[in-house]
Amino acid sequence: MKRVMLTVAYDGTNYHGWQLQSNGISIEEVLNRCLTQLLKEPVQVIGASRTDAGVHAWGNIAVFDTQARMPGEKFSYALNQRLPEDIRIRDSREVPADFHPRKTDSIKTYEYRILNEEFPNPVKRLYSHFTYIPLDEKRMREAALLFVGEHDFKSFCSVNAQVESTVRTIYSCDVAREGTELIIRISGAGFLYNMVRIIAGTLMEIGSGKYPPEAVKEMLEAKNRAAAGPTAPARGLTLISYEFPALKEKAGQQAAEEKSEKTV
Amino acid sequence: MKRVMLTVAYDGTNYHGWQLQSNGISIEEVLNRCLTQLLKEPVQVIGASRTDAGVHAWGNIAVFDTQARMPGEKFSYALNQRLPEDIRIRDSREVPADFHPRKTDSIKTYEYRILNEEFPNPVKRLYSHFTYIPLDEKRMREAALLFVGEHDFKSFCSVNAQVESTVRTIYSCDVAREGTELIIRISGAGFLYNMVRIIAGTLMEIGSGKYPPEAVKEMLEAKNRAAAGPTAPARGLTLISYEFPALKEKAGQQAAEEKSEKTV
Repeated sequence: MKRVMLTVAYDGTNYHGWQLQSNGISIEEVLNRCLTQLLKEPVQVIGASRTDAGVHAWGNIAVFDTQARMPGEKFSYALNQRLPEDIRIRDSREVPADFHPRKTDSIKTYEYRILNEEFPNPVKRLYSHFTYIPLDEKRMREAALLFVGEHDFKSFCSVNAQVESTVRTIYSCDVAREGTELIIRISGAGFLYNMVRIIAGTLMEIGSGKYPPEAVKEMLEAKNRAAAGPTAPARGLTLISYEFPALKEKAGQQAAEEKSEKTV
Repeated sequence: MKRVMLTVAYDGTNYHGWQLQSNGISIEEVLNRCLTQLLKEPVQVIGASRTDAGVHAWGNIAVFDTQARMPGEKFSYALNQRLPEDIRIRDSREVPADFHPRKTDSIKTYEYRILNEEFPNPVKRLYSHFTYIPLDEKRMREAALLFVGEHDFKSFCSVNAQVESTVRTIYSCDVAREGTELIIRISGAGFLYNMVRIIAGTLMEIGSGKYPPEAVKEMLEAKNRAAAGPTAPARGLTLISYEFPALKEKAGQQAAEEKSEKTV
């Protein structure tokens, strides 16, 4: 038995999110079906992030266990032959049998795209949130920096979420412009439900001049969802990457051991 | 009775092209239906370019005649309330009653997008053609320049097309890089059926090293479809704009007259 890790990119438009749903097709369901067909044994993946309907990914993570002899790195090719074009496996590799993507420390990075021009371009409608209200990215960048560090993000969490603690650590948060698009890029040790979308909605209100950049401090202190801005729509959000420092260390050690063996 | 001109942007993914079809929904059909509902009179638009299934537009042109009193410039707003999100009217205005978008001299501009990286990004799959084969944009740019001018483009026309002459004039053809995307931008007085897609397919083969840039000269001289490269897929193609010098002149004259009236 071995555990294989997949790096999964997808266009979330046509799916009811990552997680198995009774009312529509999910990314998880499609992966389970393709793996089960490929391996001729029942396979059930464990996902790192259960992204919402309409949210996209460049690097979500899934693991599964199999008896198959196929080497870990061959799965990406075999799966891409069977998967629909809007789900692609960027990488596959064997990981330690006890590796669990939600129970292992990780650095998660998200991007939120805002199309900020006079007129909405139809070909961008599913991958960015459009607003014709001019946004000042300098103000947004100033505000974005105030999210960095360990804070209680209760104001930036969907009220329905049931979690033990709303304290999270953000490593970086920046706003860049690419032509008529603004891109909010945020990395952290963990995110609450809807947290990135509420941060995006808040940064937009700061960019439009509704609040000053310093308002973020008061919003954090309020610990009240009503104090922050609105939840920006799902379509603008992309899960960019998961990094697992423990896996990297292990891989580094292994490489070092192999190297020393060769040297001997 | 007045004639109104619409500038239409659309995501061609979900349509069987511009032109009315018996086997699927077209952009033209949706425009006719929305205009007929809005104006409560049968309306039939005349399109400038009958783009193929899967081809996108930022500035296709449609005109229609109406008895309605609504000023020309109000139609864009009224239509955008009724149209699906993947079709947007960027501009509407009254034009001379005898203006016909296919019978008036115009400058047409197209873009062809190629995603050239190791791995296909699912969110770009509908708006660019993916290849992992490294393309050299310098070679492609050199070749692109050889299309500029008046040439017989018989080698760059679908064999099924029935046209009197295959001579066309290209004003500019360039290749630019935006990150991992290559964009071929081409303007001309007119294009043959599939001409831009065959030029794109040919430039890709030059970029990959299959042909030298100078090969374009021989391909043009051959006057034989088999001499040129393959037809690149529809999804990478966007009709960017139509310019009508005659309309601009008329508008300029009118503005000048109005100005002189005001001065008097």
